[in-house]
This record gives sequence, structure tokens and C-alpha cells, in this order.
Amino acid sequence: MLIARVATERGPRHGIVDGDRVRLVRDLSDLTTTGERVAFTSSTLLAPVQPGTIYGMAHNTGPSDRKLAPQAFLKPGHGAIGPGDPIPIPHGVGLVVAEAELALVIGRPARHRTLADALAVVLGFTAANDVTARSLQAEDSLWLAGKGFDGFTPLGPVIDTDLPADADISLAIDGATVSRAATVELARGFAEIIVFLSSITTLQPGDVILTGAPGADAELRPGRRVAVSVGGLTLINPVSAAPEPAGLLEHYRKALS
Amino acid sequence: MLIARVATERGPRHGIVDGDRVRLVRDLSDLTTTGERVAFTSSTLLAPVQPGTIYGMAHNTGPSDRKLAPQAFLKPGHGAIGPGDPIPIPHGVGLVVAEAELALVIGRPARHRTLADALAVVLGFTAANDVTARSLQAEDSLWLAGKGFDGFTPLGPVIDTDLPADADISLAIDGATVSRAATVELARGFAEIIVFLSSITTLQPGDVILTGAPGADAELRPGRRVAVSVGGLTLINPVSAAPEPAGLLEHYRKALS
Repeated sequence: MLIARVATERGPRHGIVDGDRVRLVRDLSDLTTTGERVAFTSSTLLAPVQPGTIYGMAHNTGPSDRKLAPQAFLKPGHGAIGPGDPIPIPHGVGLVVAEAELALVIGRPARHRTLADALAVVLGFTAANDVTARSLQAEDSLWLAGKGFDGFTPLGPVIDTDLPADADISLAIDGATVSRAATVELARGFAEIIVFLSSITTLQPGDVILTGAPGADAELRPGRRVAVSVGGLTLINPVSAAPEPAGLLEHYRKALS
Repeated sequence: MLIARVATERGPRHGIVDGDRVRLVRDLSDLTTTGERVAFTSSTLLAPVQPGTIYGMAHNTGPSDRKLAPQAFLKPGHGAIGPGDPIPIPHGVGLVVAEAELALVIGRPARHRTLADALAVVLGFTAANDVTARSLQAEDSLWLAGKGFDGFTPLGPVIDTDLPADADISLAIDGATVSRAATVELARGFAEIIVFLSSITTLQPGDVILTGAPGADAELRPGRRVAVSVGGLTLINPVSAAPEPAGLLEHYRKALS
């Protein structure tokens, strides 16, 4: 089942994709259809969830990362954007890259999950671009400056409730594939990630977990178009220059260096 | 003006404290009173805001920290608890401490603020306890394991909309004061903190910023009672043992070490 979030006259609504229509539901926690139907068009498609918290797995990009302890970072939930939304690149932050990842969308509160029951709390998955300002990330050990900019977490286009054991992941810039990988290459799989995070905090319905990028990243520059494909879902975003006031960010970049 | 958030039959509501009553308002973004009044009692008092995102300033505890670049961390918003709520200490995480801080509550979206207009986006302040698992913080460079546990951000008791230029901060355990300080000792003041964070992301109404602990911390153990006093507000929380299943967290602590 595919779940979309669409702009309607009454504000953002979730619904189940049914051909070229979306059958609206009460909300993400109650998928009962209301009888309302709207067209399934790219122009009304929003980020498939407005996350409370976005968790991201650090160094989970290949088998050798299993030697490292599991670690996670947070991104501001309001930094999520939808398919087709421009990714704003701030002025003067240096190298910014796309990371193609499978994102888990949490459906039920999750605390102290075990490997056996971890996946039961997952509503589904979507494609995610864990946009990262690499230079700032290297300068800020807590990663907020590298990961936390507005629009740095494109999600979508929809939530697929059928989470596969393994999903192919590819990354393309301007239509040319630059990386092919699969989630089976991740150091820690979906269930183990949920066990780890839920040993610290209660994952909330609507929270999003970026599971890690098993493939190579790619530089984002204004004017480019980036596509993340995960398990049959393709998330496409243009890249734009952020309308920054000059000077401010440079000031803090210097302070961070 | 003091703003409280109280439990009512219709769910959590914000209101303006008026003697022993709370005059309910529409919401935090529209402080128009509705005519409803409820009693102002400790038993119905909730965390004064349910933050979308909790930002915390790192190493902002004294003048020498100005030599370091500004850095911030995130805590999960749902980890906030209110006055009187027990702080749950997970089993086996080692030293856990209280940090007494002034928390800024954001009232209006804030992006690219300057020193001159930064404070205009602040709705007010409240007292905060930035509870931290020190051992885990030392093992997890991204700080989620050290800062991210459920209940690790007590806030309250109310929001005072009159942000002072300087506020006294004290920390007490079981009624005995263990630390006295003032926000004027912070390496970076309120306005500079907002300039820094809003150079990265849009601060949202209801977001909370932990500005840093200028005083000493104090160990929290189940059975203790911790009080954070900031600018005339006093936030008191009992400390309890978290109902953890044995083994799970230890497993990840070992993995992190």
C-alpha cells in the first residue's frame, strides 16, 4: 500500500494511492478512508510525513562500520521537504552533498524494542536525501551545522507500507546515475537500528529514521536536479541557491573553523 | 506576564496566570483569552510548552568558552517533561547529572536574525534542567545517547514573558543549594545564540533553546529531588528509576564504549 500526503483546500491530508486518485484517510495513525478522493498529481504531493523528530544513523554505510559503536544524530523535523521542492544551498558553506537513503517511518510508539518485534512499529518506508554540508560537518563535531539547514531532508514521494528485506538504492544527478547500492550493505539493518534508538528514547508515530547511505554521495550545486531511488520509489528535487543575507553564515563558518 | 500550560478536560491548554487562576487563551501563538478560567494548581501544571525541537548550546558555560566556535545539539522534543514529573534514570548508564539553565521559548519563526532583532522572536523564558548522562556523553560524540533519553528535559513551571538581561540560576538537591550562578556568565548571550541558530535553521514557534549551564552540575539519583531556579521561577522534579528491561541498554552501552 502506498500512502501519500497531499495539499488540499483543508490543508495537508494523508491518503491511500489508488491509481490516479488518492483516497483520503483520517490521519496517519488511523488509515480509515473518509470517502473523499483527490487527484494524485505531483503538484499537490507533499513530504509524506511531517516528522516530529528525524533520526539519522551515523557511519552505517558499510560492513566495516560494524566495528564502530552505533551512533545517531538528529535533524530538525521542520527541515523536511517534499518531492519537487527545491533544496536550498546556503551561500558560503562549501561542499554540500546528497546521501541516498531508505527512511523508516514510525507508525506506533516504540520503546525497548527487541530484534524480534522491532519492525512491527514501522509504518513503512520512503526515499530520503540526507543532504549534508560536508565542510561544516567536519568543523562541527555535533553535526547540527552540517545537517541541520532548512530543506536538508527531502522525503518522498510516498510511504510504501511493504518494507522489503533489502532495497536497491541509487543516486542520480541530472539524470545520470552516480551510485548504485542496496540496504543489505548497511552495517546495521532496520531492526537493529530500531532496537538501538528505542533503547534511548520512545520513537513517536511520524518520526523518521534515515538508515544510512550504503552508496557514494554526490555534490549538489544550484541548478542541478537530484534523484534518490529506493526500493521502487524515486524522489526528485531541484537544487537552488538559498536566499541568504550575505555575511551572516560566513561569520559563523569562520567561527566554526 | 506568566503563561502556564495546564491539563483540562479538553486536553492541554495554555493560559495566562492571574493570581490563583489561569485565564485560558486560544493557543501559544494567539494569547487572546477565551473567557475560560481554571484553577492554577501544581497538579494540573504541564511542561509550559511541547517543543517541536529542543536546541541546546554546547560549551557555553563560562567566558573562556568564547574561544571555542559556537556549537549546538538537539534533544528530542517529546523528551520534555513538566514540573513535578519524575526524571527517569535508566539502569546502567553511569553518572547522570542535572544542569540548571535558562530556556528561551520561541514565539515567532526566526531565520537570519541579527543581534539587533534577535530577541524580538522570543516569547519568554522558563527554567530548564538539561539532564545529561555524562558517561554516555563521553562515549557518544554526537551526544544523542548522553542527552536524548525520555524525560531528560524538564521545563517549567511557567513561561515568563519578561526576559531579563541577566537572571540568577541556582541548582538544589533535596533542598540544599549546590550551585549559584547567573546567565551573564554565559559565553554567548541570548541574542547571539539566536543569531547563531537562526543562521542554520528557522526556529519555530514553541521551539526551546537551552542556553547553557553557567553553574556546576549535580548528580541525580533515584529518590532525590532536584530544583532549578532561574530568574524567579523554580522547577522541581523528583528523580526515579526508569522501568527499563534489564540488559538492553547495557548491551548498547558496551557497544558504545
